[in-house]
Amino acid sequence: MENFIYDIPTRVYFGRGQIEQLKRELPAYGTRILLVYGGGSIKKNGIYEELRQIERETGIEIFELSGVEANPTIRTAQRGIALCREYEVDAVLAVGGGSVIDCAKAVAAGRFYEGDPWDLVLHWDRITEALPLLTVLTIAATGSEMDSIAVISNEETQDKMAMKHPVLRPRVSILDPSYTFSVSAYQSTAGAADILSHAMESYFAREEARLQDYFAQSIMKVCIECAPKVLEHPEDYEARANLMWAGSWAINDMLKLGHALPWSVHAIEHQLSAVYDITHGVGLAVVTPHWMEHVLKEETVDKFYELAVNVWKVPENSDRFAAARAGIQALRDFYRSLGIVSRLSELGIDETHFEEMAEKAARQAEGSYQPMTKADIVQIYKNSL
Amino acid sequence: MENFIYDIPTRVYFGRGQIEQLKRELPAYGTRILLVYGGGSIKKNGIYEELRQIERETGIEIFELSGVEANPTIRTAQRGIALCREYEVDAVLAVGGGSVIDCAKAVAAGRFYEGDPWDLVLHWDRITEALPLLTVLTIAATGSEMDSIAVISNEETQDKMAMKHPVLRPRVSILDPSYTFSVSAYQSTAGAADILSHAMESYFAREEARLQDYFAQSIMKVCIECAPKVLEHPEDYEARANLMWAGSWAINDMLKLGHALPWSVHAIEHQLSAVYDITHGVGLAVVTPHWMEHVLKEETVDKFYELAVNVWKVPENSDRFAAARAGIQALRDFYRSLGIVSRLSELGIDETHFEEMAEKAARQAEGSYQPMTKADIVQIYKNSL
Repeated sequence: MENFIYDIPTRVYFGRGQIEQLKRELPAYGTRILLVYGGGSIKKNGIYEELRQIERETGIEIFELSGVEANPTIRTAQRGIALCREYEVDAVLAVGGGSVIDCAKAVAAGRFYEGDPWDLVLHWDRITEALPLLTVLTIAATGSEMDSIAVISNEETQDKMAMKHPVLRPRVSILDPSYTFSVSAYQSTAGAADILSHAMESYFAREEARLQDYFAQSIMKVCIECAPKVLEHPEDYEARANLMWAGSWAINDMLKLGHALPWSVHAIEHQLSAVYDITHGVGLAVVTPHWMEHVLKEETVDKFYELAVNVWKVPENSDRFAAARAGIQALRDFYRSLGIVSRLSELGIDETHFEEMAEKAARQAEGSYQPMTKADIVQIYKNSL
Repeated sequence: MENFIYDIPTRVYFGRGQIEQLKRELPAYGTRILLVYGGGSIKKNGIYEELRQIERETGIEIFELSGVEANPTIRTAQRGIALCREYEVDAVLAVGGGSVIDCAKAVAAGRFYEGDPWDLVLHWDRITEALPLLTVLTIAATGSEMDSIAVISNEETQDKMAMKHPVLRPRVSILDPSYTFSVSAYQSTAGAADILSHAMESYFAREEARLQDYFAQSIMKVCIECAPKVLEHPEDYEARANLMWAGSWAINDMLKLGHALPWSVHAIEHQLSAVYDITHGVGLAVVTPHWMEHVLKEETVDKFYELAVNVWKVPENSDRFAAARAGIQALRDFYRSLGIVSRLSELGIDETHFEEMAEKAARQAEGSYQPMTKADIVQIYKNSL
């Protein structure tokens, strides 16, 4: 295990009705709050009205940045930064899924940066400070509610890249599983695929870290158990709750401690959703099995074998490659059972941009578990077609 | 899953040489520090000299409370409280295992309480404030380095009881696995038994909480894998590291979130070590299998079955009771393989105090996973003889 620092100070209020806690928490961070959200769903599910009630009761003042995109753009973040400056905002409250929270993170940090906020994506060391961020999560997927990462898109350059810094980690997150009852089957399964992917990417590492490995497997098991339940009964509170909590732990740094590496599948997928605006979790589900087949070899087979046996319940087998392949097949079958497409062509993607996307992805995946050259990634894209 | 608040702000510096970090961390909490430790081992392993070096470099002033017992007493805590007052101490630094850290917690909270500090054990709501606590851990066992609990003994009343409050949680903990190289085989295995027990006690709950269940199983697996390695090679850094990190997570509240219950096996054991001053982990190892056999029934068999299959690799079996019993037997075999005794009589314990101990234990275990009357506990003690 490599040396590490564990420091995850986000306070999480988990369960039904926990939004009440914002009455005490919000005033602790100031009197002028920027509310960041996407479309109108927070007006339908009652959260918006709850917040207006809290505003009246506590005397805080809420300003609004709405219309955050599914793949949030630096342009929208710029609008938020301008609002923070104009209204001298004290803290940011993101209500939504990962896209909204990521945008809010870019706003919170961009508030203190005088230059073009895209610089912060390119140069993380220019992030020095951020407004306190609180979140109310409405979909189990990215884990942004407890991590220090924001993924931002740049429409001009067709880039989609992550920024990461401890000051971006939310101070407080409200996780009420009942808010996810209304998440569509499509988005629910894409979210589960995203969580599963975070756990899998963290799991593949060169250094030994057994607790982290088993925790990663735990998260995978929760996804496998609970995603089908959610599909069948969208209002299954226990399944929604388990999935939501697993989502937060899949990427809050815990799994990577002591054996952190850059992720490759995420790098490969981010290019797809940057260019084609597809749903991130779906892109991951399509690409992951092909990445696995590409890197399965003598040197990696033990990690795959353990995954197959512990998570996919593949019987123990002296032919480790056979068991490893059965595990990859089980992952494919699982995605199929959730109704997730298995080919890029089904998403309207063809070879047109593979070369340029692979070049960017290879740069982002540098140092990952298995080396990924541009040629490797083009091959994975082609195999996924 | 029940509603819960997740809030574990302890910052952990994990790995070789991390004691260096105290140079930055200690001065952040003040200039006058009370160092709490046990016997002379911190002088042998070099930590004491490191701290004196930090004292010289940073200009902080270190006062000392030494001689903390294996089962720390309220009397020793009182000595520490007096030192805090006399020298106007700003923060407490505990260097040692759970006993030392627990004592330091009682000191840190007792500093702000004017009455008899034993009151704080009896009435947790009287704990209002505590000096900031930093720790350097030297044995993987109790998890006190990341939790909000202290177990304190009262020699006069022969009581051993826990106090728990958020202000008791350490702000910073240094976890350097190489400090545990010199821990004896006996203490290493007792520590592993303690960690395993924390995970098992958390696992048995009435409410569903899948992630927490799997995390608990993860911790058990790490104990099972790493304890034998540590016995064989006391300087196996990876095994020591995995065990140490598992120990912190076994009781930092994560496993209990959403399905917390009072623990029964700990209550049953605490009476033993209060009266007979035996090693806590050894007492747990003796009592646990008997507790399990006592509560195994139709209503609980599914939890036992899952444990047997996932953790002990018992083959799946349509006879769930047979598999559950095989899991309990595997736990016994594991303890035996570590050289831990299996009977109370081997620890010099006889029936003399069973009635009075059972009465106290039953009170502490009230509301636990399975009801524990005084008669139940006497029976478990007798079965363990």
